[in-house]
Amino acid sequence: MKSLFIENLTWEEYADITEDNVLIIPIGATEQHSLHLPLSVDNVISVNFAQRLAKELNGFIAPALSYGYKSNPTSGGGPLFPGTIDLNGNTLTILVQDILNEFLKDGWKKIILLNSHYENQAFLSEAADLVIKDQQEEFPKIVLASWWDNISEDVMPQIFNERPFRGWDLEHAAITETSLMMYFEPHLVRYELLSEEGLENVPKYQRYPVSKTLIPSSGNLYTSISSSPEKGKIIVDNVIENFLVFFKEEFMIEQLVF
Amino acid sequence: MKSLFIENLTWEEYADITEDNVLIIPIGATEQHSLHLPLSVDNVISVNFAQRLAKELNGFIAPALSYGYKSNPTSGGGPLFPGTIDLNGNTLTILVQDILNEFLKDGWKKIILLNSHYENQAFLSEAADLVIKDQQEEFPKIVLASWWDNISEDVMPQIFNERPFRGWDLEHAAITETSLMMYFEPHLVRYELLSEEGLENVPKYQRYPVSKTLIPSSGNLYTSISSSPEKGKIIVDNVIENFLVFFKEEFMIEQLVF
Amino acid sequence: MKSLFIENLTWEEYADITEDNVLIIPIGATEQHSLHLPLSVDNVISVNFAQRLAKELNGFIAPALSYGYKSNPTSGGGPLFPGTIDLNGNTLTILVQDILNEFLKDGWKKIILLNSHYENQAFLSEAADLVIKDQQEEFPKIVLASWWDNISEDVMPQIFNERPFRGWDLEHAAITETSLMMYFEPHLVRYELLSEEGLENVPKYQRYPVSKTLIPSSGNLYTSISSSPEKGKIIVDNVIENFLVFFKEEFMIEQLVF
Amino acid sequence: MKSLFIENLTWEEYADITEDNVLIIPIGATEQHSLHLPLSVDNVISVNFAQRLAKELNGFIAPALSYGYKSNPTSGGGPLFPGTIDLNGNTLTILVQDILNEFLKDGWKKIILLNSHYENQAFLSEAADLVIKDQQEEFPKIVLASWWDNISEDVMPQIFNERPFRGWDLEHAAITETSLMMYFEPHLVRYELLSEEGLENVPKYQRYPVSKTLIPSSGNLYTSISSSPEKGKIIVDNVIENFLVFFKEEFMIEQLVF
Amino acid sequence: MKSLFIENLTWEEYADITEDNVLIIPIGATEQHSLHLPLSVDNVISVNFAQRLAKELNGFIAPALSYGYKSNPTSGGGPLFPGTIDLNGNTLTILVQDILNEFLKDGWKKIILLNSHYENQAFLSEAADLVIKDQQEEFPKIVLASWWDNISEDVMPQIFNERPFRGWDLEHAAITETSLMMYFEPHLVRYELLSEEGLENVPKYQRYPVSKTLIPSSGNLYTSISSSPEKGKIIVDNVIENFLVFFKEEFMIEQLVF
Amino acid sequence: MKSLFIENLTWEEYADITEDNVLIIPIGATEQHSLHLPLSVDNVISVNFAQRLAKELNGFIAPALSYGYKSNPTSGGGPLFPGTIDLNGNTLTILVQDILNEFLKDGWKKIILLNSHYENQAFLSEAADLVIKDQQEEFPKIVLASWWDNISEDVMPQIFNERPFRGWDLEHAAITETSLMMYFEPHLVRYELLSEEGLENVPKYQRYPVSKTLIPSSGNLYTSISSSPEKGKIIVDNVIENFLVFFKEEFMIEQLVF
Repeated sequence: MKSLFIENLTWEEYADITEDNVLIIPIGATEQHSLHLPLSVDNVISVNFAQRLAKELNGFIAPALSYGYKSNPTSGGGPLFPGTIDLNGNTLTILVQDILNEFLKDGWKKIILLNSHYENQAFLSEAADLVIKDQQEEFPKIVLASWWDNISEDVMPQIFNERPFRGWDLEHAAITETSLMMYFEPHLVRYELLSEEGLENVPKYQRYPVSKTLIPSSGNLYTSISSSPEKGKIIVDNVIENFLVFFKEEFMIEQLVF
Repeated sequence: MKSLFIENLTWEEYADITEDNVLIIPIGATEQHSLHLPLSVDNVISVNFAQRLAKELNGFIAPALSYGYKSNPTSGGGPLFPGTIDLNGNTLTILVQDILNEFLKDGWKKIILLNSHYENQAFLSEAADLVIKDQQEEFPKIVLASWWDNISEDVMPQIFNERPFRGWDLEHAAITETSLMMYFEPHLVRYELLSEEGLENVPKYQRYPVSKTLIPSSGNLYTSISSSPEKGKIIVDNVIENFLVFFKEEFMIEQLVF
Repeated sequence: MKSLFIENLTWEEYADITEDNVLIIPIGATEQHSLHLPLSVDNVISVNFAQRLAKELNGFIAPALSYGYKSNPTSGGGPLFPGTIDLNGNTLTILVQDILNEFLKDGWKKIILLNSHYENQAFLSEAADLVIKDQQEEFPKIVLASWWDNISEDVMPQIFNERPFRGWDLEHAAITETSLMMYFEPHLVRYELLSEEGLENVPKYQRYPVSKTLIPSSGNLYTSISSSPEKGKIIVDNVIENFLVFFKEEFMIEQLVF
Repeated sequence: MKSLFIENLTWEEYADITEDNVLIIPIGATEQHSLHLPLSVDNVISVNFAQRLAKELNGFIAPALSYGYKSNPTSGGGPLFPGTIDLNGNTLTILVQDILNEFLKDGWKKIILLNSHYENQAFLSEAADLVIKDQQEEFPKIVLASWWDNISEDVMPQIFNERPFRGWDLEHAAITETSLMMYFEPHLVRYELLSEEGLENVPKYQRYPVSKTLIPSSGNLYTSISSSPEKGKIIVDNVIENFLVFFKEEFMIEQLVF
Repeated sequence: MKSLFIENLTWEEYADITEDNVLIIPIGATEQHSLHLPLSVDNVISVNFAQRLAKELNGFIAPALSYGYKSNPTSGGGPLFPGTIDLNGNTLTILVQDILNEFLKDGWKKIILLNSHYENQAFLSEAADLVIKDQQEEFPKIVLASWWDNISEDVMPQIFNERPFRGWDLEHAAITETSLMMYFEPHLVRYELLSEEGLENVPKYQRYPVSKTLIPSSGNLYTSISSSPEKGKIIVDNVIENFLVFFKEEFMIEQLVF
Repeated sequence: MKSLFIENLTWEEYADITEDNVLIIPIGATEQHSLHLPLSVDNVISVNFAQRLAKELNGFIAPALSYGYKSNPTSGGGPLFPGTIDLNGNTLTILVQDILNEFLKDGWKKIILLNSHYENQAFLSEAADLVIKDQQEEFPKIVLASWWDNISEDVMPQIFNERPFRGWDLEHAAITETSLMMYFEPHLVRYELLSEEGLENVPKYQRYPVSKTLIPSSGNLYTSISSSPEKGKIIVDNVIENFLVFFKEEFMIEQLVF
C-alpha cells in the first residue's frame, strides 16, 4: 500500500495522485511545553491528526513544518524559554507561500493547512491569501483548520470533568495537549512531572519587551492533572468527525471509495 | 490647555512632554460595518477610547492609523466588500515598526497601541516585538490592548440582556460596536437600518480564496438590535476602569497629579 | 447630502459611487513646522485642498496618510527635531501600493495622490508606478500633484510682496504654509511666534549623518513674517483653478453636473 | 539516556545542555530522485549523518529542514518534476537566519549546518554570514559541511569500481546516494527500478526558463547500477572520520568524555 | 603614479590609502538622451567630474554605478524609450547601502556620492541615511552632490546666452548636458543631430501609467542648439570650484599636500 | 561601424537592434586578487570575453556589473581583504532581476549573463529564474555561463604544464586568471609580484564568522608562476569556441551573416 507521506514516494508514485486527492500540510512549532512534555508537541499533534484525516479523506501528507511563529507568553510561555525556536512572522508567511505555490503547480486542488500552534494562525492565513487571492475560480482551494476550534460543545464536559475549562489560551501543555500526547505518543510524556501549577490571572493585553515574569517558571499555564489517553481519544474522535463535515463540503467529496 | 493630540502641538510644545507621559497610538481600519455603520467604526472607537484614556493617564495621542490588516470574512465580512481597504500583513508591521522607532527616539518610555480591529493584532504584536526585542531594560515599554478583551464578566449581562452573546468574532457591527458608535458619534449611525440579520453557523475554519458566500449580503455577522448609547457608556466606563488597572501597573504610575 | 469623506459612508453608500467619480487621497507628514505651526501642517493642507477639489471634481476623499517620508534638513528641518515622525522610503511606498491596489479593486478609475510634504514625492511616484506600470489601457489613471508646483507665476508677487521668494525648499513653515494655515485652520497658528528667522545660505548638497547644525534652532528655514489669511486664500484659489485644468483633461471630465 | 533529538526533550532537559555541546541542523530538500528513490533522500541522508556525528561529538540534533532551494536541471533534475517542492533563495536564507538567531540566543556556541542538497549551499552560506558577520569573537561558530566534499580520494575507487566517477553534479540518485539510502533506509529503495540510464553530455551552462528536455524522463542523471549498502557504509565511515578531524579542530574539542 | 580608479589597484595598494583620502562613487544611469547623445551620458558626466574632483581632493574613484532609478517623462523622457534601463527605487537603495557599508568597513571616512541622474536623488539619500543614521560621531561622513545644484548664478548667462534657461527638469540632453559631453567625450556626440525641438508646456504633475505622449518623439525636452565644448568647460570649472568649497569644509581639508 | 557597447549608442541606434541580436551582460566583482592583479580582474575578464563573443554572435554588450556577491575565503580570499566590496545575495538577485526585466521589455530574446566571479553564480541563477519562470514559450531565453566551466579537457595540460591543476576553487589570481589578464590587459599585471605562494590544504567546509587565517596573507590561493599571455590566448580561443557551440544551439543561430 502506498505511504500516506509523500516524502516516502518516488516522483512517479507521487505524480500518480489525482486531482481529487487532498494534500495535508501539518504545521507545528518547536516550543517549550512545561516540564512534562517535549518541544515537539505541536508537530506530533499535527502529524497525528493528519494521518487520521488522510485515511478518511483520500489524502496525502506533506513534510511537516517544525518551526513556527513566536510563542506568546500568555498562550505558550513565550520566546524566553530555552528550546522555543521562533520564526519571524514574515519568514513563516513567505515560507508557506513558496510551499503552497509549488504544490499548486504540481496540480493539487484541495489543500489543508493543519495547524496546532495557535500563534501561527495569522501568518498562515496571510500566506494562503497572498498565494491565491487573485484567483477567480473556486478551486484550487486552501483550508486552514485547528483542532481546538473544532471540539463539540457537548464533549467539553468529558474533558474538563475534574478541572474547569479556563479558555484555550491556557490549554498550553495543559489537559487537552497532555491527553493528546498520552494518546498519540505516550512515550514522550513525563507522567511523573504533571502538575497542578498554572497561571492565576491571565493578562488581557500584551506587553513588549516580553518577559517570563507573567507565568510560572515551569512554563505551565494551567494544570495538566486529570489528563489521560482516554480523553485524548475522545478529542481526536470528535475533532476528526467535525473536521470531516466541513472538509467534505468544502472539497465536494460526496462519498469516498478506496 | 494643551491639546491631547500631538498633531496640534508645535515641536516645542511636544518636546516639553516628559518621560512620565504616556503615548497612545490609536489603530483601526477602513472596513465595511454593515448597512448602519460607516467605514470608520474602528478608527472612531480607537480615537475615542484614546481620548478618555489620555485624560486619566497623563497621556497624549499620536495620529491614528486608519488603514488596517485584511478583514476576515468570519469576523469582519472580508475583503470583498466595497470600502474594505486592507493592508498586507507585512506592510502593517513595518509601518508600525517605523512609527514606534521614531517615537522611541523622541524619548517616549510608555507607549500604548490601542487597537480596535481584531485582525490587526498579530501584525501589531510582531511590530512591537521586532522593535524592542533586544532591549534588556524594562523601559521603554509598549503595551498592546483592545477594548473587547477588557470587559468585565459581570457587565456582559447588561449588554446582552435582550440578545445572547455569541462570541466576539460576531460582534462586528453588532450590539457592542453599534452601542459604542451611538455613544461616541451618534450622527454616524443609520438608526433605521439596524437589523436582526446575522450568521447562523459560524465556520470553524478559514478558506482561500475568500468569498462572500459565508455571510449575509448586508455584511452583518450578528444582530445590532438592542444597541443603545447607554450600553455604549457602560462598555466605555468598564473598559477604561479595567484598562487603568494594568496600564498603571505596567507603567508604574502610582498617583497622577495634573 | 453624502459626506465627501468615504470614512463617513456605509459600504452600501460607498458602493454607490460610480466610475466617473474621482478619489482623492490626501498625503502629508507629522513634522516640525517651527515654533508657530503644529506638527500636522502638511496633513491639514492636503485635507483642505482635497475638500475644495472634491467639490469641483465630483470627488470623494479617502482617509489621509498622516505619516510621511523623512524630513530633509534643508527643506523640512530634518529628522532630529522632536515631533518629526518619519517613515522609511520603502515603508511609504508599499503602504501606498497596498492602498492603491485596494481602491483599484473597488473600481475607481480616477485617483489623485494629493501631496503636501515635498520629501514624499519620489516614494509616492514609485508606489503609483509599481502598481500600474504593466497596464496597457489609459484608465485607471493615478495623478500625483502638489500645490506648490501649481501656483501661477503672476500670483507670486502678491504672496511675496514684502519678502522675496527664495525657493520652495525654504517655504517650510514660511510665508506660504503659514498663510495657508491662517486661512484653513487659524486656531492652530501661534500668531505671536511668527519670526523673521531663517537660513542664510542654503546648502547645495546633502550630508549624512544628518545634523541640526545647518538650520536655526527654531526649525525656521525662512521668515513667516508677512503671512496672512488673505494670501492663503489667494494661493488656494489659484492652485485649485490650475489643478482643475489638468485634472479635467487627464480624467476626461468635460462638464460636471451634480 | 537523553534523546539526541532536541524535539524529544522538555525545555528543562534541553536547557541542561552545556556550551560545549554541538548543535547539528540537518538540511535537505523535497526533490525527485529518479524512479527508485523517494522524495526524501536528502533529508534521510542529512538526518542519518547527523545521528552518527552527534554520537561522536557530544552533539544534539535540531528539527530538520525538509524543504530546500530550487533543484537545478543538471544536478537534480529541476523544478519541473512532480514532487520537487522548491523554496526561493531568499526564503531559505531568512528561514535559516531566524533559526540560527534563535539557537544562538539559547546559548549554543558550536553549530553545524549539515547539508545534503547541493543547491542549498549558497543560500545557507548567506544565512550564516548575515547572522554572524559582525561578531568579533571566534565563538559562537557556525560550520557548513556536506558529505560529498569530504570523501577521501583513496576511497573513491571502492565506490566507482564498476562504473566510472563522472562528477558530483551527476551523483543525483546515482551510485553514492543510492548506496547511502540502501545503508540508511533500505526499505525506501525500489531495488527493481535501478537503471543504467543517465545523461550523456552534461551542459556547461544554465538556461532559463528551465526545461526537462536536457535530462532523461526518469530524472536519472547517472547510473545507479552497482550501488550497494556496503558502499553506503564505506562512504559513511569515511566521511564521518573526515568530518571529525575538522569539526574537532574548529570546535576545539580535544577529548570527548561522556 | 597610482591610478585614481581603485579598480586598477591591487588590494595592497588600495589598503595603503589613508583615512584622509576621499572616496568618490560616480553614479549615473542608462537612459535615452535624445538623438544626439548616447545612453551613457549620466555615467560619463559623473566619472569625468569624479576624475577632476579626485585630483583636487586627494581622492580615489570607486567603480561607477551605471544603472539608475526610473527616468521620469518630464525630466528624462521616461521608461518607455528603448535603452532606458531602470532600477526600482528599493533596488537602487539597497545596492548603494551594501556598497557604502563595505567601503565604511574598509575604513573610508569621507565618501562622496557624485550623482548625475536627477531621479536617483531620493533613493541615494535614503541609502546614505539608512547606513549611517545611528552613528553618533560626525565621521565617517557621506556627502551627496550633483553638478546642476552647484553652478553659480553669475555663470548661467554665459551658458544660456542664445537660448533662455527654462529649468533644470528640461536640461535633459539639452544645452548643459550636451556641452558637458562635447567637452568630456566629443566623439560620443552626434553633432549633426542637435535640434531645436523641445517641450512647450511642462506638466506640473505626474501621471501613471506613464506615457510618451507628453514629450517629443525624439526624447528631447529642450533645445540643444547653442551647446559647445567651451560652455562645457565653463560649467566644469565653475562646479568644481563650488564643489571644493563645501567638500573641503565638510571633510575638514585645510590644505592639501600631495 | 556601430559600437558593440550599447552605452555608446543613442536610443534610436539601440532601438534598431533586432530580435535576432544577442545581448551580453558582463558580470564581475570588485575583489582582492593577490599582490599582482588589480581589484577589477573579474570585470576585465567578463568584458573582454563579451567583446569577442559579441563579434561572433551578432551581439551587443550591456553596461557591466562591477560589484558582485561575497568573496568566499576558500575561493576568493574572502570579505576581510581590503578592496573586496561585496553585495548581499538578495541585493545582487534583485539588481539583476530589475535589469533583466528592463531588457526583456525592450524586446531582447537572447540574453547572456556572462559571469567571471564564481560566488555570483547561485544569485544570478535565482534572478534569471524569478524573472522568467512562469513563461511558457521557449523565448526569450536567458543563458548563464562562465569561462572556467568551458575549457576543453585536452587544453588543460597546455595551461598546467609546469604546475599541476589543483581545482577551480584555487584558480583565484592563479595561473588561469593571471594568464587571461596578461593577454587582455597586460598593463594591469604587476609581473614582478607573481609568486609561488598558495594554500596547502583546502578546507572542505565553510565556517562563520569568516576569517583570514585560512589563507596566505597575500590573498594568493595558488601559484601564479608559469602564467603567460600565450596561455591566456589558448584559454580564450578554446572557451569562445566552446561557448559558440551551445550559444548557437540555444539561440537557434544557424549561420551568421553580418
